[in-house]
Amino acid sequence: MAQVHFEKIALIGIGLIGSSLARVIRREGLAGHIAIATRSAETLKRAEELGLGDSYTTDNAEAVKGADLVIVSVPVGSSGLVAQEIAGSLKDGAIVSDVGSTKASVIAQMQPEMPANVHFIPGHPIAGTEYSGPDAGFAELFTGRWCILTPLPETNEQAIAKLAAFWEACGSRVDRMDPQHHDLVLAIVSHLPHLIAYNIVGTANDLEQVTKSEVIKYSASGFRDFTRLASSDPTMWRDVCLNNKDAILEMLGRFSEDLASLQRLIRWGDGDALFDLFTRTRAVRRGIIEAGQEVDAPDFGRQSATLSKGGERP
Amino acid sequence: MAQVHFEKIALIGIGLIGSSLARVIRREGLAGHIAIATRSAETLKRAEELGLGDSYTTDNAEAVKGADLVIVSVPVGSSGLVAQEIAGSLKDGAIVSDVGSTKASVIAQMQPEMPANVHFIPGHPIAGTEYSGPDAGFAELFTGRWCILTPLPETNEQAIAKLAAFWEACGSRVDRMDPQHHDLVLAIVSHLPHLIAYNIVGTANDLEQVTKSEVIKYSASGFRDFTRLASSDPTMWRDVCLNNKDAILEMLGRFSEDLASLQRLIRWGDGDALFDLFTRTRAVRRGIIEAGQEVDAPDFGRQSATLSKGGERP
Repeated sequence: MAQVHFEKIALIGIGLIGSSLARVIRREGLAGHIAIATRSAETLKRAEELGLGDSYTTDNAEAVKGADLVIVSVPVGSSGLVAQEIAGSLKDGAIVSDVGSTKASVIAQMQPEMPANVHFIPGHPIAGTEYSGPDAGFAELFTGRWCILTPLPETNEQAIAKLAAFWEACGSRVDRMDPQHHDLVLAIVSHLPHLIAYNIVGTANDLEQVTKSEVIKYSASGFRDFTRLASSDPTMWRDVCLNNKDAILEMLGRFSEDLASLQRLIRWGDGDALFDLFTRTRAVRRGIIEAGQEVDAPDFGRQSATLSKGGERP
Repeated sequence: MAQVHFEKIALIGIGLIGSSLARVIRREGLAGHIAIATRSAETLKRAEELGLGDSYTTDNAEAVKGADLVIVSVPVGSSGLVAQEIAGSLKDGAIVSDVGSTKASVIAQMQPEMPANVHFIPGHPIAGTEYSGPDAGFAELFTGRWCILTPLPETNEQAIAKLAAFWEACGSRVDRMDPQHHDLVLAIVSHLPHLIAYNIVGTANDLEQVTKSEVIKYSASGFRDFTRLASSDPTMWRDVCLNNKDAILEMLGRFSEDLASLQRLIRWGDGDALFDLFTRTRAVRRGIIEAGQEVDAPDFGRQSATLSKGGERP
């Protein structure tokens, strides 16, 4: 693994991703100084109580002064505003990156604001949980997960290599991708799953024939899996929807088309076609487990944890 | 907890549910004799290797002879055939139950076959994993989960109480419900989630712009959650679709309607309405965790397990 060290790293935004970065940067000794900035005084106070950084401010411009690495971890709809705020205070030669779930939109918002003497390299670590805020972060969040960098064609290769080495030091594997392709890939692997999850939980909530209490009691039969994604941060996901519209609408269209076809198989009782579909999908999970991106345990390995919390007997 | 003991329990079908029952019956000493029957000689051999019962046969009629409790754990489409096979060999006063995911169809298939001198009480334990077969079972599967009984109006109350006590001794909580209502509730909490999961994994599989390898690599961003349900037993799920058609079509219709509405919000960029939906759904998960039906840990508590398998560092 490449040796990597920055004199000062500025973290703009200290939610799940920002605070996980703060923790792993500290653990791995990747920075001489960690500057933390967030718009909310309350969140900043909490970050300080947790001892996540070396300096704390609600002034984003202040935080980036002298920083050789700046990582913006805010809802993607706020990227442009942050870029405007920090642009005038960036150090000559600084690397500026982000962690946003959409990339074309972030580039469109941030790139025009960036001065010529900094290296702007958009990024997206494929990692997270359904929790948010500075308490939710942990140093191992990025371990074994992919981080996708989507540099613009003219970007300095040394700066890209340095940012890649940083993410590797945080435990990530690093990939490089075209921003448009990133947005399409993420629309299917992340945005559509979240929307489907939000949607089914909404549908269940609105039923008049089945009570909320019944949905909750019997949720272990499948439904509860969806409630995890559907409890993710609403601001983040609103912004994703507004900032990756075309790719999301494309994937939603395909999903709905396939669902209509599945509905027709059920209506006409086509058991063979149903069996074929339900068999085809099994291999995908095996591939994910083999790629080290999923636990190789039944039920996400949650059975034992459930027993200790919810069970009536040990 | 009620004291409960049967001289002989016959388990017809020894997959995930049947073999979990065998294990918990043994652990709790609920039967003097466990008879195991399954159609497949290979599965039967495996059950015997695992020592799950006291006698083993591929002849369902043979297994139920002298049994005071018979539990049928087969794909719901096979319920009628099993009922025909065992009807003539059932002991006077025996309790006959099942574990099928649909109830009206199972009643329609089994009830006409049942002799008047036995107590037929349909049941459904709300428990399972994505794995199947006799190796997949474990004694704790039912702990803290609900088991729904859907007895017919004329059923002997003492027999119902005895079956309820049996499930409680297996670790379950027991509910009673009308079969039609059961099928509607399960359509939303279980059948629809599985179909949605199968469908999205199918959609992702068929994309021409995103490779399978990309879907797998970046699946930790949401998609992998769905692959668990989508790797469930295809025979079981084909049968569920064919045997709870009306309720499933009703729920699919509502889901699709809501999804079309969500798609419209995205197309028109209605951030406020998106934020409202994404906020409303959060409370449901909290309710499920509070009801002891879900682990109170980020990411289903799977992070640590992932690290030990897939991570590049400890």
